[in-house]
Amino acid sequence: MNYQPINFIEKFSLFQEQWKPKVIAELNNYQFKIAKIKGDFIWHSHSDTDEAFIVIRGKLRIDFRDGAVIIDQGEMFIVPKGVEHKPYAEKEVQLMLIEPEGVKNTGDEAANKITAENNIWI
Amino acid sequence: MNYQPINFIEKFSLFQEQWKPKVIAELNNYQFKIAKIKGDFIWHSHSDTDEAFIVIRGKLRIDFRDGAVIIDQGEMFIVPKGVEHKPYAEKEVQLMLIEPEGVKNTGDEAANKITAENNIWI
Repeated sequence: MNYQPINFIEKFSLFQEQWKPKVIAELNNYQFKIAKIKGDFIWHSHSDTDEAFIVIRGKLRIDFRDGAVIIDQGEMFIVPKGVEHKPYAEKEVQLMLIEPEGVKNTGDEAANKITAENNIWI
Repeated sequence: MNYQPINFIEKFSLFQEQWKPKVIAELNNYQFKIAKIKGDFIWHSHSDTDEAFIVIRGKLRIDFRDGAVIIDQGEMFIVPKGVEHKPYAEKEVQLMLIEPEGVKNTGDEAANKITAENNIWI
């Protein structure tokens, strides 16, 4: 068998669009998704799952109603389920999300123009 | 609230022992574990779960019965459930594992001297 690793830099080189997570791997019913983001997202929460953020390049801020966390490259953070949060990136950030398959990027908010399509593999 | 990211380099600086995964984060019932490894592990498999390997530093080889994969830093690989595998590191590798809590490092093999204690947080 020809086994191949998944290389983050190579995967990020395959797309330029922001705020559109791409699936790169599946672990049981969980997905590893990478995304490029810049600017402000919307406030949202995921009522039934935690969400892992791993920053591969850049510096991500996640705002909460009662504070914020700065996640630099080489760092991660778990947003607990049900907690309202809003990602923000002054400059473009390359990050990886880990969450169950089927989770919407806009969480429990009604689908709108920034809701990304799910299950887009790259 | 005072929110803090989890920094991989800082976490790896807190221990030296090899082959003893330490939990650094939990996502629902999944755990993120970091480990330092060097040399050969044993052949084993996990009959009920996939296992994610992310290499933070160094170069990891995972042998399979019908091949092998080299995972360099900045790369990841998912070992599918039920697949026999044997990690190997010529020089020390710093890696992160993601898998459901309670998974033994030696998989379905009977517990032995290299079976690590679970749920050791760092």
